[in-house]
Amino acid sequence: MIFLSKLNQQKAIVSMADFSATAVTQLLDRASAFKAGAQAQVQEPTFAANLFFENSTRTHTSFSIAEQRLGLKTIEFSPQSSSVQKGETLYDTCLTMAALGVQLLVIRHPENAYYQQLLGQAYLPVALINAGDGSGEHPSQSLLDLLTIREEFGHFAGLKVAIVGDLAHSRVARSNMEILQALGAELYFSGPAQWYQTQFDRYGEYRPLDELVGAVDVLMLLRVQHERLESAENQTFSAAAYHQAYGLTEARAQRLQPQAIIMHPGPINRDVELASSLVESPHSRYYEQMQNGVYVRMAMIETVLQANDVKFKSNRRVTQ
Amino acid sequence: MIFLSKLNQQKAIVSMADFSATAVTQLLDRASAFKAGAQAQVQEPTFAANLFFENSTRTHTSFSIAEQRLGLKTIEFSPQSSSVQKGETLYDTCLTMAALGVQLLVIRHPENAYYQQLLGQAYLPVALINAGDGSGEHPSQSLLDLLTIREEFGHFAGLKVAIVGDLAHSRVARSNMEILQALGAELYFSGPAQWYQTQFDRYGEYRPLDELVGAVDVLMLLRVQHERLESAENQTFSAAAYHQAYGLTEARAQRLQPQAIIMHPGPINRDVELASSLVESPHSRYYEQMQNGVYVRMAMIETVLQANDVKFKSNRRVTQ
Amino acid sequence: MIFLSKLNQQKAIVSMADFSATAVTQLLDRASAFKAGAQAQVQEPTFAANLFFENSTRTHTSFSIAEQRLGLKTIEFSPQSSSVQKGETLYDTCLTMAALGVQLLVIRHPENAYYQQLLGQAYLPVALINAGDGSGEHPSQSLLDLLTIREEFGHFAGLKVAIVGDLAHSRVARSNMEILQALGAELYFSGPAQWYQTQFDRYGEYRPLDELVGAVDVLMLLRVQHERLESAENQTFSAAAYHQAYGLTEARAQRLQPQAIIMHPGPINRDVELASSLVESPHSRYYEQMQNGVYVRMAMIETVLQANDVKFKSNRRVTQ
Repeated sequence: MIFLSKLNQQKAIVSMADFSATAVTQLLDRASAFKAGAQAQVQEPTFAANLFFENSTRTHTSFSIAEQRLGLKTIEFSPQSSSVQKGETLYDTCLTMAALGVQLLVIRHPENAYYQQLLGQAYLPVALINAGDGSGEHPSQSLLDLLTIREEFGHFAGLKVAIVGDLAHSRVARSNMEILQALGAELYFSGPAQWYQTQFDRYGEYRPLDELVGAVDVLMLLRVQHERLESAENQTFSAAAYHQAYGLTEARAQRLQPQAIIMHPGPINRDVELASSLVESPHSRYYEQMQNGVYVRMAMIETVLQANDVKFKSNRRVTQ
Repeated sequence: MIFLSKLNQQKAIVSMADFSATAVTQLLDRASAFKAGAQAQVQEPTFAANLFFENSTRTHTSFSIAEQRLGLKTIEFSPQSSSVQKGETLYDTCLTMAALGVQLLVIRHPENAYYQQLLGQAYLPVALINAGDGSGEHPSQSLLDLLTIREEFGHFAGLKVAIVGDLAHSRVARSNMEILQALGAELYFSGPAQWYQTQFDRYGEYRPLDELVGAVDVLMLLRVQHERLESAENQTFSAAAYHQAYGLTEARAQRLQPQAIIMHPGPINRDVELASSLVESPHSRYYEQMQNGVYVRMAMIETVLQANDVKFKSNRRVTQ
Repeated sequence: MIFLSKLNQQKAIVSMADFSATAVTQLLDRASAFKAGAQAQVQEPTFAANLFFENSTRTHTSFSIAEQRLGLKTIEFSPQSSSVQKGETLYDTCLTMAALGVQLLVIRHPENAYYQQLLGQAYLPVALINAGDGSGEHPSQSLLDLLTIREEFGHFAGLKVAIVGDLAHSRVARSNMEILQALGAELYFSGPAQWYQTQFDRYGEYRPLDELVGAVDVLMLLRVQHERLESAENQTFSAAAYHQAYGLTEARAQRLQPQAIIMHPGPINRDVELASSLVESPHSRYYEQMQNGVYVRMAMIETVLQANDVKFKSNRRVTQ
């Protein structure tokens, strides 16, 4: 089953590294079908638990909506009011959910690769989707980025894509480098030098933003993640200075090619990564990225549950 | 569309000032129909998000229940575990909700007129109901008060209504003054002088509670909002002294006319605004107000969504 | 109606003391039927509110799932974002829920016998299930323990059951003593002497764990509840020392009889009450206890709502 983690016999989507190019194409096709009005509903009562150990609006809400569009019942787990406060481990919390009949866990956790302690456990016969681990992976974000690019250009081969900003702490940047390269895109990087790592050299070239802005098809701006920076870095950080040096200012935006699109995973720091006036500009696909997130997550959930023998009633009729 | 805000082209209910007397009557009629057993259900999956940036039990739960009675799916947004913690603005949070497919936002926010930054935005094609803004407005509370009065007396013209207490910080008091005057009621005010403002003179007369208590049809007691008082005011505040001077004591309640009703928006500070023994007395309509809140909110939601082209299956059959 | 509290005319399950042996049998039979695939659905929209004033994962989630499996709509009440923060009393919060149309309250509260202030109140025409009160009762936990034992042995009479550990603070221990004695089991106790009370003498004998471990059919390990211990006790508490003196070590587990089962209410302090390696050992019924919790709670909810004249569509077909 190509969509699933190579690490184990369980049904899980934890890393973009598990996806072949073919698998990506199939999943994006299914997401596009959902966007065009295809419907699917679980045949029996099925429960999903969203275990979010980090703050989130768009990813959390997007998964909730995707689950409910597929007819799942959603359990919202709040670490603050749970037995996690009594010292319960992540594994034991997941064990509890499985015992209670939950069939899908969607987990966001501050620890990198937290899912390693869960995969392959005999007592966790439950599907798992990684909704973000520390500074590691965020596969649903990568997939919604890919869908947004494919909707715009119809292909990936030969597209010039620049990824700009906090490459060090981003859990999207590295996944996107790998998969975009595999799909044939030409990659460039920019942003503060201290956030660039030489290991990225094999994916693309590091260049000043002013060189890239007039040349690329896709400009992916990464969020400055104040919550992940050392406090010393936060103290010296100047929003205005960052914006001038590494942000998409209005002046730089004038030099974008007509077909170029701006992307951002959100939440945006307005007037830092990009000028506030550009968030809803014709070049921006910020809104479309969020829209596509629901459809991509529906495709991920359906895939991982079907691999777990959950049956869906499907309706390919396009109504929108 | 008479029910909707005059401020913009969006579908929103943000202020009682947008309602004509006819519009109020139509909405109360629909709420009464729901109470009598009429049913309505959305025809397609429709999501509502409750964005409560202030603590609330009755308003929040009441909206959740109203939404679910109409077949909506409810997204409960918790500011504490959201990207608001990462500095996301209210506008950007709402933008996210709209992009994710949410069609109705119900918002309570500590900032007066927060909705001004949302109305008329092209990228927010979503219906909006104001569930309370700072010390501003609280239209669903006003409407449930009106329904409770109308159920009791069948009309508003000529009714003597006293509004007593924290007129300065109440978001219900001002809305109710305007709409009750427009509907023909005769208004009186009472309570601490420092909470009375001369701008209220045009709606009614300020009198000692002992003069009013034997004369009125409706006694609306306002909550002492400790969370909105300056800390100096809180330090000197004496519950017992307030109760004796401005509260409905058991002695004062003896002088109520037989037809008079007591109202309170909740939560009650027992033995402050009114004696604890009176909360469930025959004169009290506290319980009925809460009951009516669900039906009024169903009418508000149906109205604002229909204006947004959401289709309902309606059933006028009265089953209760 | 045998399942209901003797204290009042309301529909409530608050204490195991209200259950006759016959009532227990009927309720366990219904839970077993649900486990075997029987289904029941409320005929009209029915709302349950889960009011959890203490942290909980398994009990809270288990009730949510049980409610939704029966077709109820669940209101998740969070004390942190409610009017409780404005000083609202428990009674007034429940009054609000009843007025809003909630028909079932499931309450966990840190105060012993909190439900006494709710029972018999004329304005609370709502069903009530106690999901744990202070160090008092926890009837749904007792019932799931009983179901797990009955599944294993088919009967209670003559079974040797040891209850080990924090007998003083456990809200399960005392309920289980009474009901297991009534059902004919032979009881033994063990654990730290300071947590043993002479009032337990009438239910069974206090013995060293090493005497019991090779003799019993059921070994019920109680959780060390750090959150209920005095801070002085917590400071001197040694997990390793407790484990050696009163815990189920791997060495002790070797001496269990082949038919013996290990039970624990969760969350487990691994390597305190029992060795981590034993949590999923063949003797352990930890997972089955959690599974059974959902079915027992479905039976409790159905029972208490039917007594409140809520109608269910039932389907006795066994599908699993």
